[in-house]
Amino acid sequence: MNGEFDIIQRYFTASTRAPRKDVVLSIGDDCAITELHPNHRLVITTDTLVENSHFLPTISPADLAYKSLAVNLSDLAAVGAEPAWVSLALTLPKVDHQWLAEFSQSFFQVLDHYNVDLIGGDTTKGPLSLTITAHGLIPKGRALCRHSAKAGDWIYVSGTLGDSAAGLHLLQQKSPQCRESIEESAVENAKVYLCQRHLRPTPRVLLGLELAISGLSTTAIDISDGLLADLGHILNRSQCSAVIDLDKLPLSEQLMRCFDDKTAQSFALCGGEDYELCFTVSEANRSKMERALANIGVPVTCIGQIHQGQKSSIQFRHQGKPVMIDSATGFDHFR
Amino acid sequence: MNGEFDIIQRYFTASTRAPRKDVVLSIGDDCAITELHPNHRLVITTDTLVENSHFLPTISPADLAYKSLAVNLSDLAAVGAEPAWVSLALTLPKVDHQWLAEFSQSFFQVLDHYNVDLIGGDTTKGPLSLTITAHGLIPKGRALCRHSAKAGDWIYVSGTLGDSAAGLHLLQQKSPQCRESIEESAVENAKVYLCQRHLRPTPRVLLGLELAISGLSTTAIDISDGLLADLGHILNRSQCSAVIDLDKLPLSEQLMRCFDDKTAQSFALCGGEDYELCFTVSEANRSKMERALANIGVPVTCIGQIHQGQKSSIQFRHQGKPVMIDSATGFDHFR
Repeated sequence: MNGEFDIIQRYFTASTRAPRKDVVLSIGDDCAITELHPNHRLVITTDTLVENSHFLPTISPADLAYKSLAVNLSDLAAVGAEPAWVSLALTLPKVDHQWLAEFSQSFFQVLDHYNVDLIGGDTTKGPLSLTITAHGLIPKGRALCRHSAKAGDWIYVSGTLGDSAAGLHLLQQKSPQCRESIEESAVENAKVYLCQRHLRPTPRVLLGLELAISGLSTTAIDISDGLLADLGHILNRSQCSAVIDLDKLPLSEQLMRCFDDKTAQSFALCGGEDYELCFTVSEANRSKMERALANIGVPVTCIGQIHQGQKSSIQFRHQGKPVMIDSATGFDHFR
Repeated sequence: MNGEFDIIQRYFTASTRAPRKDVVLSIGDDCAITELHPNHRLVITTDTLVENSHFLPTISPADLAYKSLAVNLSDLAAVGAEPAWVSLALTLPKVDHQWLAEFSQSFFQVLDHYNVDLIGGDTTKGPLSLTITAHGLIPKGRALCRHSAKAGDWIYVSGTLGDSAAGLHLLQQKSPQCRESIEESAVENAKVYLCQRHLRPTPRVLLGLELAISGLSTTAIDISDGLLADLGHILNRSQCSAVIDLDKLPLSEQLMRCFDDKTAQSFALCGGEDYELCFTVSEANRSKMERALANIGVPVTCIGQIHQGQKSSIQFRHQGKPVMIDSATGFDHFR
C-alpha cells in the first residue's frame, strides 16, 4: 500500500525492550532471519481475524491488537511452546494514524510482556483483517498434543469458562438475563468484567510451558471453539470418551451474577474464545501437577475423567446422576 | 468458518509426494511443529494478496494459487534460502467447491515442484484475500542481503524485465500500443505470453540458492516494485549509487513486439511484479558467476555498475551518453 515503508517505520519498529538475541534480520526487509536453537523444535501457528466474522466493528484498535496476539499465543500455549517471533499481515481500508498509533502501542505492549519480537509481515489496503503467524520453540519431545489422553486420566481446565461468550453476548447488546435480586452496580461491574474477558482473554502461556517442561501432562488444547468442541478434538484424536461433572465447571462469580444457571452452563460448555487450556493428567501425576501449578499461581479445576471406548462421546453428571446435554447448545432440557 | 475442518480435509491435505522429513506435526492441528536444521538459520516472509489491490477479480483460482506462492518464494529466493514450509491464511466470501478444487490443485502443484510442505494456516469467511507465510532455510552466514553492494560491483538481473507490467496492462484491457507492422497472430501470441508472465512469474529460487551457496554474490533483491524502486533499496542500504546502461536492459521479444520502445523501457524500469532477481557481483567473481549460472540454465544480464557516493541515485546511459529518466515513469522525455 502507499506509504507502507512510512507506516512500518513509524508504528512497527517501536518495541521498548532490546530485540531478542535470536533475531538476525528483522522487520523492514522482505524476509526475517532467525537463529535456530539446538535441541528444540519450531512451533508455528496462524490465525486470521476478519471484521464482523471475528470481531465487532466497534472494537477498539488496542483491544484488537491484544486479541489478535492472544489467540495466536494461546495456540502456542496449547503445545507448551515458548513464544518467540510473530509476523503481522495487516489489511486496512485506509491509513488512519490515530488507529495505527493505538493499535501498535497495544501490540508492542503484549509482545514485550511475552518477550516476543515482531519480525515482519505485510501492510495492504483492503477490508479490515489481520493474519498473525506466531513462532514458538519447544525442547524436542516435549510438545503437548491431542492424541495422548488415556482412560483414567483426569480432565482439567484453567481459569473459568463461559465468561468470553457471556461478554460477547453483552457486547452484542442483546438483553442480558440478569438476576433481579442483585444490586445494580455489582451487576454493572460484572458485565464490564465479562466484556473484558471477551476482549482480553489471557493466553495460558505459563501454564502450557509448565505442563510441557515438567512432563506432568502430555495432552492439551486451548478452548477456542468451546469446551465440548475442543475436548471433542482430544477425544477424537485419543480415541476415547469422557465423563464431565457439571457441578465442577468453574464458573466466575460475575457470570453467575449476570446469567441464570442454565445460560451460564451453556456459555461454559459451548461458548468459545475463553482461551483457557483443557488438559489431562494421569492419577500418578495429579497431586504433583496441582502443587506445581499452585506454585506458579495458575488456577485449574478438575472437571471430569477420560474413559475407554465410544470415541469422542461425552457423558454428563449432575449431583452424581447422568444427565443429557444438547452438545450444540450446552442446555440440558430434561433437568 | 463453518465446515473449516471439512475444507481442510478435502482440499488441503492433497500433496502427491511424501511429506518432508523435517515436518513433525502438520496441517490439521492448531500448530505445526518442524525440526530445526543444525548450522542453518530460519528465513521467514509474509505476503498478503487482496482482491482488487493485488489481483483482478477475473483471475482464475489456479493462477491465484500460483501467484500467491510465487511472490513468497521469490522473497526467499532474494535471500538465497531453500524453501521448506508455508502456512496459508485463506479468507473466502463463500464456500465454492469448484473454486477450492482448482485453487488447491494448483497450490499443491507449486508446492510439490519446490518440495515445500503446507503445514497449517486458517480458513475464514470474509472478502477474498490470502496471506502466506513462507519459511526457508539457509546455512549460517550465507544469506544474501541488501547492504553489501560496493563501488565497482556489476549489477545483474535475471530473465527479462517489464513483461509482467505489460501483461497487467493488457489484462486491464487498456488499448495496447501494438506495432502495426507485425502480423496479428504473432502479436496475439506475444500478448498471451506477457499476460502469462504477469499471472505466473517465475520465483528465482534456483538462482538465489546458487548465488548464496557459492558466495559469488552477497547482495540481491527480488524485483517486485520495479527495477528502479528495488535497486534503490540496495543503493540505500549499501550507501552507494549506480549507473544503468539502458541499451542493456533485457527486454523480451514479446514485449518489443507489442509495445513501442519508450513504453517497453518504462515497463522494464518501473513496472513491478517481474519477480526477477537483481544482484551485484564483484569484478573478481564475474566470470566465475556467469559460468556457474550458465551451468544451471538461468539467463542473467549485466545492466550496469555500482558507483560511490550520492546515496541511492541512479544515472542512466543510452548509446554511451548520459540521459535523464523520470524515475516514477521510466520515460526519458528528452530522448
